[in-house]
Amino acid sequence: MRSSVRRGEMAKSTQLIDNEVFRAYATYTVIVLLKMMLMSLITAYFRITRKAFVNPEDTASFGKGDSAKKFLRTDPDVERARRGHLNDLENIVPFVGIGLLYALSGPELSTALLHFRIFAGARIFHTLAYLIPLPQPGRGLSWAVGYSVTFSMAYKVVKTVLLL
Amino acid sequence: MRSSVRRGEMAKSTQLIDNEVFRAYATYTVIVLLKMMLMSLITAYFRITRKAFVNPEDTASFGKGDSAKKFLRTDPDVERARRGHLNDLENIVPFVGIGLLYALSGPELSTALLHFRIFAGARIFHTLAYLIPLPQPGRGLSWAVGYSVTFSMAYKVVKTVLLL
Amino acid sequence: MRSSVRRGEMAKSTQLIDNEVFRAYATYTVIVLLKMMLMSLITAYFRITRKAFVNPEDTASFGKGDSAKKFLRTDPDVERARRGHLNDLENIVPFVGIGLLYALSGPELSTALLHFRIFAGARIFHTLAYLIPLPQPGRGLSWAVGYSVTFSMAYKVVKTVLLL
Repeated sequence: MRSSVRRGEMAKSTQLIDNEVFRAYATYTVIVLLKMMLMSLITAYFRITRKAFVNPEDTASFGKGDSAKKFLRTDPDVERARRGHLNDLENIVPFVGIGLLYALSGPELSTALLHFRIFAGARIFHTLAYLIPLPQPGRGLSWAVGYSVTFSMAYKVVKTVLLL
Repeated sequence: MRSSVRRGEMAKSTQLIDNEVFRAYATYTVIVLLKMMLMSLITAYFRITRKAFVNPEDTASFGKGDSAKKFLRTDPDVERARRGHLNDLENIVPFVGIGLLYALSGPELSTALLHFRIFAGARIFHTLAYLIPLPQPGRGLSWAVGYSVTFSMAYKVVKTVLLL
Repeated sequence: MRSSVRRGEMAKSTQLIDNEVFRAYATYTVIVLLKMMLMSLITAYFRITRKAFVNPEDTASFGKGDSAKKFLRTDPDVERARRGHLNDLENIVPFVGIGLLYALSGPELSTALLHFRIFAGARIFHTLAYLIPLPQPGRGLSWAVGYSVTFSMAYKVVKTVLLL
C-alpha cells in the first residue's frame, strides 16, 4: 500500500505540467498562439468590411457575374493584416519550438518568465505597430526584441543539450 | 535487484508515449501534419500540369529564353492550393502547439479524442472544400469548427496551468 | 534521507532532457529553426540593399511623397528569399512536430541521428540552392530528401502509438 502511494507521488512529481517553468511556458505559448489566431479574425473582418475577396465562391452571395467579380480584389488593410499574420508564423513558430526545449533545459523560473514575458509583450506590440500603423522603427524594434529572446533561449538549449 | 526492477517500472510508467491521451495526440498530430504536407504535392502537381512556375531555373528544361519565360506565370489552381496550404499553416500550427499542452494537462481520454477527431475531420473537409471548391459557407464553417476546437483546448490549458 | 535521494535520482532519470535521443532532437530542432529565422535577416538585407519595401511607413526615412513611393515595389531577390522562408515554414514545422513525437517513440540513437542529420543537411542545401540559385533538380531533390525524412519519422510514430 505504502509503496503504491509513493509510486503515485513520484509519477506525479515528474509530470511536466507540475513543473513551474513548464507551466509558465504553457501559459505564454497559449497567449502568443491565440494572438496569432486572432489575425485570422482581423483579416476576415477587413475582407468583409472592405469587400475584398480572393476566392470566387466567397463573393457568390453578392450576386452573379460582374457584380460579384468586382469584389475579387486586394485591399491595403487586408494585405497588411495578412503580412502581420505571416510575420507571426515566422516568429512564433520558433518561439514555440525552441521555448519548449528551453523550458525542459532547467532554467531558473525568474529567468524563464523574463524571456516569456518580453517575447509576448514584443509580439503584441508588433501587431499593434503593424495594424495602426506606428512609424518605424517601432515595428522593427519589437520584431528584433522577440527575435533576440528566441535566440537567447536557443543559446541556453544548445549549451545544455548539444548532441550532434 | 528488486529495487532496480521497480525503478525501471516507474520510469516506464511516466513515459509520455505510454499515456493514452498523449498517444491519441501523437496520432492526430501526425495525421494533420501529413495532410498539410500533402498540400506541397498538390501544388507541385498543379505547377507541372498547368505549366505555371515562379523560379526561372524551374523552367529551364522547357527551353531557353522566351519559350521558357512564358511558363513563369500564376495559375488559379496553383494559387488555390497555395492558399489552402497557408491556411493549414495558420491553423494546424496552433493545434499542434496548444494540443501538446492540452494532452499534458490531464484531460479525459474521451474528451481529448472528441477534440482531436473533430479538428482532423474539419481540416480534411476544409481542404476538400477549398480544392473542389464547394460553395460557401462550407469552407468557412469547417475553418470555424477547427478554430473552435483549438480555442476549447487553449481554455482547458490556461485553466489548468496559468502562471503569468 | 536515502529514500529522498533515491526519489531525486528517479525523477532525474525520467527527465526528457537527459535522454540522448531527445538531446539530439533538441540540437537539430534548434539548428533548423535558427536556419529558418536567418531567412528574416536575408529578406531584410535584400529589402534594404535593393530598396524594395511593402509598407509605406518603412520608406518614410527616404523622404516624403513620390520620392519615397518609388521604393514600394517588389524585387526578385526579396521575393526569392521570401519564397525560401515560406518553404522552410511548410517543411520545418512538420519536422519539429513529428520529430518530437518520433524522439519520444523510443528509436535507436543512431537511427534518430541519421534522420535528424539528413534533414538538417537537406534543408541547409535547399536554402543555398534557392538563394544562389543552383540549377534544378538541385533544389527539388533537397526538398524531397527532407520531405522523405519527415515521412519516415511519421511512419515510426504511427506504428508505435496509433490510437484513433
